Amino acid sequence: MVGEKLRGLIQLLSKFPGLGPRSARRIALYLLSHRSKVLKPLMAYLDDVNLRYKYCSVCHYLDEEDPCGLCRSKTRDSTTLCIVACIGDVWALERASFFKGYYHILGGLISLSHGKNPEDLNIETLKNRLSIGISEVVVALDSTLDGQSTLHYLIQDVFPLYPHIKVSSLARGLPMGGELESLDQATLMSAFWGRREVNSALFSNTTSWSDFEKGK
Amino acid sequence: MVGEKLRGLIQLLSKFPGLGPRSARRIALYLLSHRSKVLKPLMAYLDDVNLRYKYCSVCHYLDEEDPCGLCRSKTRDSTTLCIVACIGDVWALERASFFKGYYHILGGLISLSHGKNPEDLNIETLKNRLSIGISEVVVALDSTLDGQSTLHYLIQDVFPLYPHIKVSSLARGLPMGGELESLDQATLMSAFWGRREVNSALFSNTTSWSDFEKGK
Repeated sequence: MVGEKLRGLIQLLSKFPGLGPRSARRIALYLLSHRSKVLKPLMAYLDDVNLRYKYCSVCHYLDEEDPCGLCRSKTRDSTTLCIVACIGDVWALERASFFKGYYHILGGLISLSHGKNPEDLNIETLKNRLSIGISEVVVALDSTLDGQSTLHYLIQDVFPLYPHIKVSSLARGLPMGGELESLDQATLMSAFWGRREVNSALFSNTTSWSDFEKGK
Repeated sequence: MVGEKLRGLIQLLSKFPGLGPRSARRIALYLLSHRSKVLKPLMAYLDDVNLRYKYCSVCHYLDEEDPCGLCRSKTRDSTTLCIVACIGDVWALERASFFKGYYHILGGLISLSHGKNPEDLNIETLKNRLSIGISEVVVALDSTLDGQSTLHYLIQDVFPLYPHIKVSSLARGLPMGGELESLDQATLMSAFWGRREVNSALFSNTTSWSDFEKGK
């Protein structure tokens, strides 16, 4: 009823991240009903990005040039390197725009379940970079089993080769707006273990509770 | 940071039905990281469906041939026509596979908010079909404001021209598995108004409650 080619398109779309058979059918119909405004521009974009975008040989980011725009930047702090799993992680950090060092993209995480080993990650290029000029590394990996395995591997097998480099990993704790009551036990434990001393100086500009009560 | 072409692709994807900026970014990265297995097959499929699929001149379904496979079928009941808004509705009905008549796709619904008028729908071809051989019409439109407006228009302006045709519309009521407590008022009212007399003959093959109690 649907036809071979359209069925093929729907099957391909349904395997996209976040999509299923239902959304794939909707998108296929959307494409076929908006040929000049959506389908043809999509074809042109796909052709363009396929031809233009290449992986950066330094950090493994995707860009039209090699080294990529991030690696070519002169305004970033060349002594600090942030290790992430994938390009989406770079985008997330760049959207938050507080980190001003360089990135290194591992191209995935070590995963027993997906059969992904250290050899499958961009470790050699990481070692090359760590051996020159880097004084601080921030490991920014997912707080998952695979993220932890990868962090463990880096701590055991990679960072000991560069004892002068200061290494840190992202803090674990309450997400912004997180409520204790609905928090999972692991996060609650991490938040408790990682508790910070409250420095009264941090609050010196704010009204104290007693002042607030007086003012009422 | 993302580059013009990739940004364009993400923006286009983010307007797809059911997608947003987040899922569009994920899909764009998925495409670029799986070029031979996903991006290139996708380009080939898009090219193919764009070239091959045309609207059926009879029922306005999308198919590689005109008239479409559904209209060319000899096994369907040629006296019954089901009127739907779009191709996705045909797919939904065909998946359920209980209706064996032919379809007519209006190509949308009358909508004040979207400025869609009867002239924008496939009404002329519908009239041509109703004037020959059709004895029953089932209107299968969404239970929404636009669906109701379109049904109203058909009842007022189209069906009176063919007084010999029996017209019906989909029943309104409890969805399968629906719980009274969580049902909206309008559905509850429709279900109440459309209540059916319970025919004991329907249950003659099942064990009555008293028999069931005795058997325990």
